[in-house]
Amino acid sequence: MTPGPTPVAPETQLAMAAPIIHHRAPQFMEILGEVREGLKYLFQTRQEVLIFAATGTGAMEGAVANTLSAGDQALVVDGGKFGERWTELCNVYGVKAGRLGVEWGRAVDPQAVAKMLDDNPAIKAVFVQANETSTGVQHPVKELADVTKNRPGTILVVDAISALGGYELPMDEWGVDVLVAGSQKAMMLPPGLAFAALSDKAWEFVKASTLPKYYFDFAKARKSQEKNQTPYTSPVSLILGLQEVLAKIRRDGLEKVFAHNRRLSEATKAAMKAMGLELYSKDYSSVVLTAAMAPAGVDGQKVVAELRKRGIWIAGGQAQAKGKIFRIAHMGYIDEVDLVGAIAGLEIVLNQLGYKVALGTGVQAANQVLGKEAAA
Amino acid sequence: MTPGPTPVAPETQLAMAAPIIHHRAPQFMEILGEVREGLKYLFQTRQEVLIFAATGTGAMEGAVANTLSAGDQALVVDGGKFGERWTELCNVYGVKAGRLGVEWGRAVDPQAVAKMLDDNPAIKAVFVQANETSTGVQHPVKELADVTKNRPGTILVVDAISALGGYELPMDEWGVDVLVAGSQKAMMLPPGLAFAALSDKAWEFVKASTLPKYYFDFAKARKSQEKNQTPYTSPVSLILGLQEVLAKIRRDGLEKVFAHNRRLSEATKAAMKAMGLELYSKDYSSVVLTAAMAPAGVDGQKVVAELRKRGIWIAGGQAQAKGKIFRIAHMGYIDEVDLVGAIAGLEIVLNQLGYKVALGTGVQAANQVLGKEAAA
Repeated sequence: MTPGPTPVAPETQLAMAAPIIHHRAPQFMEILGEVREGLKYLFQTRQEVLIFAATGTGAMEGAVANTLSAGDQALVVDGGKFGERWTELCNVYGVKAGRLGVEWGRAVDPQAVAKMLDDNPAIKAVFVQANETSTGVQHPVKELADVTKNRPGTILVVDAISALGGYELPMDEWGVDVLVAGSQKAMMLPPGLAFAALSDKAWEFVKASTLPKYYFDFAKARKSQEKNQTPYTSPVSLILGLQEVLAKIRRDGLEKVFAHNRRLSEATKAAMKAMGLELYSKDYSSVVLTAAMAPAGVDGQKVVAELRKRGIWIAGGQAQAKGKIFRIAHMGYIDEVDLVGAIAGLEIVLNQLGYKVALGTGVQAANQVLGKEAAA
Repeated sequence: MTPGPTPVAPETQLAMAAPIIHHRAPQFMEILGEVREGLKYLFQTRQEVLIFAATGTGAMEGAVANTLSAGDQALVVDGGKFGERWTELCNVYGVKAGRLGVEWGRAVDPQAVAKMLDDNPAIKAVFVQANETSTGVQHPVKELADVTKNRPGTILVVDAISALGGYELPMDEWGVDVLVAGSQKAMMLPPGLAFAALSDKAWEFVKASTLPKYYFDFAKARKSQEKNQTPYTSPVSLILGLQEVLAKIRRDGLEKVFAHNRRLSEATKAAMKAMGLELYSKDYSSVVLTAAMAPAGVDGQKVVAELRKRGIWIAGGQAQAKGKIFRIAHMGYIDEVDLVGAIAGLEIVLNQLGYKVALGTGVQAANQVLGKEAAA
């Protein structure tokens, strides 16, 4: 239940263990055709969703290198560990990135972004995380898109690596210009695939961009995919896993997937509250991840370490939040059994580390949320 | 038996189907430590072998972006479809790439390279394929390294994507500066991992390089790996497969792996000769791939198509060789049963397409080679 690579379902593992198909074979092209449709459904877009053999960071790099040019100005929303990545990427490519710092645990204020764009209309791109995994905050993507969508000179680039497939992010409807995702979180696959989808406006930016790109060349990838191919060797086994996962998502329907995560999230947050634990995220607490403050006098890293001894994997804090928090991911192939078990373990470990909480408090609160629909 | 993604052994498939481990977990770091040692053995180097979640092209891009700067001069040996890729990469990054054209089916003459470097000492890098998959030719890497190794201002960059693990390429001993490989050929894994190893000389070039890089940042990757980590999320399942494959290679020993491929190669070439078929590669015919000329009046693409109907997968020609040749890969997880069966199918198909060859001619010649050691 870490926000790193999340568990993969056995049926997906089996799909990926199928014999290797040649990536130019008609059989594989048919699979890629189906995968392309499934990705459009998941991204809620009519645009091509580009597939790369890489982890999400590769697609983030592509988002910078394909839409901007050296000397361009950009604005990076930086409210956690992953916000910094956008800044590093801009620096590498000579893009002048202004930084809108957001206190860790807080969401960005869309009006602050609007003001910065008003003050400096030369800003060509706003970079943001949909879900800041290091703090458990969801930034208000819809409201940010409202700010950028009527500005023809500015695109909104969203890292949804830990968000897409976890909760509602309809890119076309909201007007997101570039949406980047990865295979290893809510998509329930092993790491190794990165995705990017672009709005018509962003594709216009691609035409003007002069930064160097080759492996992550978006225009070339789109051209290939429209022929049910990829420019280079396809990561065949991961694509077979992707086919399996996307078919399941389409069968279940996005709304059901999102409702599952919402339910787990609400149960987790209820359990934290019942145990007297504060959330680290002060606003827009994430549907896919709960970041809780360690109680006074308890080291968050020790909570994580003790739970690992019991076979329960959650994550600690990073950088300035290290030791202060612990993070429970509830996305992808995770169910109520996993969740209630993890909370039970947490109660035991907190007591062990000196924070007295009556055993059963957290699991009771969680199960009151989980059982609601059965009672209704 | 195509030179694309090659078959993966069932035991490797099972290793990759193991439950996902967190990429920062001690257990995974231990695995990465073992994998790092196995890669050094395979590359025959004391240098760190960098691992990327990507296909081989990504590491090729990294080789350009990490060692050169815009405006630098380079020399690309271009004797097939994959030689062109180095030129494209140089063009994207503003590296001025001179081209040493080599007739398709021929190997580059190291003396021609030496002359070009004498004429233009500003050339900072020579780019070449170890094995040109489109023509079935092995370029003389050792002799090319002899040309570059005493020139402190020039590095030799070798794409060994379809070669490494197939035959002898001891990078440290020969003095290769950058060796790039991929997981999906002789390494017997699914596509999705790319590798690069650099000599001390090449690491000096990295210090001077000013081209932008982030996902394929070699210095950052080395620093992470020395702590048994990767800079971004590790492609955990592929790394588990890699661990399995590398353990097997170390158990068997490189010499045994190479001898296996040599034996299959010699058997294939004997079969072609016995059937009266000419090789497309006029010199240094590849140990991992045999490119044969289709007989007069027979379309090479039809040979491939008819064999596919029989469940036998070989490859046709590409670009200027399309229709003229067909290519049989004999690398990785391929044995004599596969090979003799494929040659039997080829005899039948050639007859069917109007080229009369006594049935059994090819398989007899192949088996005379294959059985030699048993008789000895």
